[in-house]
Amino acid sequence: MKELVFVGLGLHDEKGISLQGIEETKTANQAFIELYTSVLPCFSMQRFEAIVNKLVHIISRHNLEEENGAVILNAAETGKTVFLIPGDPFIATTHVALRIEAEKRGVRTRIVHGASVMSAIIGLSGLHNYKFGKTVTIPFSENSSKTPYEVIAQNKRLGLHTLCLLDINADEKRFLSINEALTLLVNIEQKRKEGVITRDTVAVGVARAGSNAPTLKADFVKDLIRYDFGDPPQSLIFPGDLHFMEAEALVTLAGAPERLKRLAK
Amino acid sequence: MKELVFVGLGLHDEKGISLQGIEETKTANQAFIELYTSVLPCFSMQRFEAIVNKLVHIISRHNLEEENGAVILNAAETGKTVFLIPGDPFIATTHVALRIEAEKRGVRTRIVHGASVMSAIIGLSGLHNYKFGKTVTIPFSENSSKTPYEVIAQNKRLGLHTLCLLDINADEKRFLSINEALTLLVNIEQKRKEGVITRDTVAVGVARAGSNAPTLKADFVKDLIRYDFGDPPQSLIFPGDLHFMEAEALVTLAGAPERLKRLAK
Repeated sequence: MKELVFVGLGLHDEKGISLQGIEETKTANQAFIELYTSVLPCFSMQRFEAIVNKLVHIISRHNLEEENGAVILNAAETGKTVFLIPGDPFIATTHVALRIEAEKRGVRTRIVHGASVMSAIIGLSGLHNYKFGKTVTIPFSENSSKTPYEVIAQNKRLGLHTLCLLDINADEKRFLSINEALTLLVNIEQKRKEGVITRDTVAVGVARAGSNAPTLKADFVKDLIRYDFGDPPQSLIFPGDLHFMEAEALVTLAGAPERLKRLAK
Repeated sequence: MKELVFVGLGLHDEKGISLQGIEETKTANQAFIELYTSVLPCFSMQRFEAIVNKLVHIISRHNLEEENGAVILNAAETGKTVFLIPGDPFIATTHVALRIEAEKRGVRTRIVHGASVMSAIIGLSGLHNYKFGKTVTIPFSENSSKTPYEVIAQNKRLGLHTLCLLDINADEKRFLSINEALTLLVNIEQKRKEGVITRDTVAVGVARAGSNAPTLKADFVKDLIRYDFGDPPQSLIFPGDLHFMEAEALVTLAGAPERLKRLAK
């Protein structure tokens, strides 16, 4: 059967895959994996291959982009093929083109979902999911962009929270840190002076979401900018209007100053 | 050790749990499960208990709300306790209060994430994740509300997509369908006449996200309102501005009319 199954690996190590994902991989003719659209800090190929009892081929960004996924598509045209992807497979938009091409070639595609970094960070924070506006990625400074500042400003005007993913370059093992991201945003504020991200703005930093020991800290920007979050990956949330229960969650779960409760509605 | 681990069950059956979730459950002193904040259409307690090799106690909404989770908190105060929850544990805000109360009692809490309905639906659609605005739930008609109409309108003004979760009552096995939700929205349009949801508005319906056979269909409202999506659960997306690649995805993956590509930017 011509079939390509996209399987999510979750967030942290080789145990983030679902039981169904393991079964699909075991029963596939061929299995491929990519580890460049996101990072799984403690993933071991050796342990993973032992779990699925199968040789898994690593696909590089070069493989996929230069050859338009030919090696995966050719495999899928000869039998059931699994493509393993960090997180939930289509949260990064990278692989949508591959799925479309497979369907055009008459290859049936399916998705076995995994935990996504977005819902993990939102869940850890204790903030209400339906109060988040548009998500934005803050790029490394050499790609300096006003977009994140403008997205945070737009969401705040609507009373909404902003989830900021921080840029990673998994190939080079480079990660934008919360401290660097806050510095970039404060620099933009100093030019724009719109009061979106001041020293007294509240923000929430989350490091290593999906691991057994994530770090979660809510504080005013002037203090958060010096906080030590430890190892990557890291993310940031800028809250909009806070419900009382959300302020309570930030105080109890994220060590926010007690006076945050007075800002809640 | 006083410990409460919240474990996500994913979306569809007993195989949506991660390998880590299974291991946490096997090594817990006590395990509880709730199946009322969301629905897992093909979940079997018998098969699940065989996988985790443990008796799992079912918690009803009544248990949790009337007793403020006392049975779970008391168990966690005597040793490692696992609480199993559909989807990703804190995407429904229901359990945040339990987590806060546990931390206040000196019980360490952790989260083992699972696939969430939000990232699953966004991923299935092929639409770009960072172009979604605020999410909204469309309630049953007896709780008729203008909020969903207004959220869709606000997102559209900003060029953003809207994910609409459709109300469920898991206890009574009642599910709002895509057809019913569209009818509710068209009725509001007929009163408000703001042109947010007309017969020629494009929408995307998704049924049974996370199963092996989801149904995905993009079409104009006048046609989608009669489309047979089959069994629940179901959800809706109202696209904002479409990038060419997104229109291509809707045509190839969701059977949208070819002329949708002419609406893309």
